Amino acid sequence: MTIERIAILGTGLIGASVGLALRSHGFEGEITGWDPDPKQSAIALEKSAIHRIADNPLIAAEQNEVILLCGPVLTILEWLDLLGSMLQPEQLVTDVGSVKQALCEHAASRFNGPDQPGFLPGHPMAGKEIGGAASADAELFNNAVWLFTEPVSAASMHPAVRILADKWRGWIAKFGCRVIDMDPARHDVLCAWISHLPQFVSTAMSALLEEQFAANDDLLPIGGRALREMTRLGASPFSMWRDIAHTNSGAIANSLLALEQHLAHIRENLKTPELREEFEQANRFRLVTNPRKA
Amino acid sequence: MTIERIAILGTGLIGASVGLALRSHGFEGEITGWDPDPKQSAIALEKSAIHRIADNPLIAAEQNEVILLCGPVLTILEWLDLLGSMLQPEQLVTDVGSVKQALCEHAASRFNGPDQPGFLPGHPMAGKEIGGAASADAELFNNAVWLFTEPVSAASMHPAVRILADKWRGWIAKFGCRVIDMDPARHDVLCAWISHLPQFVSTAMSALLEEQFAANDDLLPIGGRALREMTRLGASPFSMWRDIAHTNSGAIANSLLALEQHLAHIRENLKTPELREEFEQANRFRLVTNPRKA
Repeated sequence: MTIERIAILGTGLIGASVGLALRSHGFEGEITGWDPDPKQSAIALEKSAIHRIADNPLIAAEQNEVILLCGPVLTILEWLDLLGSMLQPEQLVTDVGSVKQALCEHAASRFNGPDQPGFLPGHPMAGKEIGGAASADAELFNNAVWLFTEPVSAASMHPAVRILADKWRGWIAKFGCRVIDMDPARHDVLCAWISHLPQFVSTAMSALLEEQFAANDDLLPIGGRALREMTRLGASPFSMWRDIAHTNSGAIANSLLALEQHLAHIRENLKTPELREEFEQANRFRLVTNPRKA
Repeated sequence: MTIERIAILGTGLIGASVGLALRSHGFEGEITGWDPDPKQSAIALEKSAIHRIADNPLIAAEQNEVILLCGPVLTILEWLDLLGSMLQPEQLVTDVGSVKQALCEHAASRFNGPDQPGFLPGHPMAGKEIGGAASADAELFNNAVWLFTEPVSAASMHPAVRILADKWRGWIAKFGCRVIDMDPARHDVLCAWISHLPQFVSTAMSALLEEQFAANDDLLPIGGRALREMTRLGASPFSMWRDIAHTNSGAIANSLLALEQHLAHIRENLKTPELREEFEQANRFRLVTNPRKA
């Protein structure tokens, strides 16, 4: 499991949490961090999520065995461009990007060939609505799922890189994650339903309520837990979701349209027996997922 | 604050929780309970939420100073019909119904006249997605809001009933509730936005996901906390929500339509700068409500 040197490019919530998780699970190598916002890398260093801050991320990438890319999808895409032609075949790039097909397509010609560096696309299903290193947490990934979408081309990875990829998977398992491998296209459709749809619905509901109640806000807390839960993700930053909306727009549009149709169906049947069917179908969903909740 | 005898008609989650809250805050009178489902009243008795089970709810109503009606809105409506012509002017009926205008209109000719019993319409903004006396909790109302929608006609309440109503309000405050009085029509519009809309959206999302994933359910837990929160209310029973949908359909339809429009706007702007505005508006909503979250 020994990885000697790892560089985390992007030490916000996820990057700094990975650093903390590595150290709390006994990682003995050196963790170098860098962030486009120097405040984030300073906080990460202060929290001991990283050992040192890199002056130059490209030099840091050149000098580490494993390079973890953390950030919005389009930022990761740019990193893949830069690093593909720069790194050695014994180096492994992995990431935490929320959309995988665009990244994998982009990496296809640049990584995982016999003389190319390795790329292991990853996606931890964990987060908080408030980003930044200050919210980082060594336990963020405990009991979460970490998805990998290794492309078929990864079969031709350099043997040294294959070993690094397996070591990285070993660390992810140590964090307490359930690891699931899937095809990148399937990943994006799945995430549209179970991650992106909840986000955009919570954003829509928060924006709508802001519109309705801006002048009457002392009534909003009356909604209690239900309203808090349904609007918690409304605090999520546009900076991250812009890239997800941009790179997974087809699947997200499908899920939004399907929900709009369900809502219209409910609206048109508030006084008819059709409403019972909608509730019964919703009740069945809970029965299936509850046993796995813990 | 002494109320000698109170009857709770409907000892499910809310009714039994009121019984538990009364007793844990030092209520020394006798609490008689009844439920259309004998299992519920048996559980309420076993949990000491009530002192005894009534054989006949009408006789129990006749023999108590305060009668608390707990149940779906249309059930409460039927009780108001029966009790209005039966009770004495010194008796107080209060309730926990989720929709208030229909109840208040119905009660107008039957209660709060000089020779009529009193009616104090109430609505605790607290609950759980799983109903029943087994889930009852003495702390359910702590930090919640308890709304009252006393009609203008209540000004002519019998003086003895006014005293009972004030005592009842005193107990609600003891439970740890913030009490807010408002007009019943305004109550129903407010609840459509902050309570009914979140419920129907969660039902729609749960039903949609059940449709999409029934055969693949082991992937659903990947969604994590966000998906759990957004679909938690999907477990809510139709039996309760049927009556809310029926008696507040206009306001609910308005809120659903407005959300459908926001979702469509997001869907059509996944790749345009309009998406930023939706997120920024949603972010502002959180900034307003967060300070009051605790």
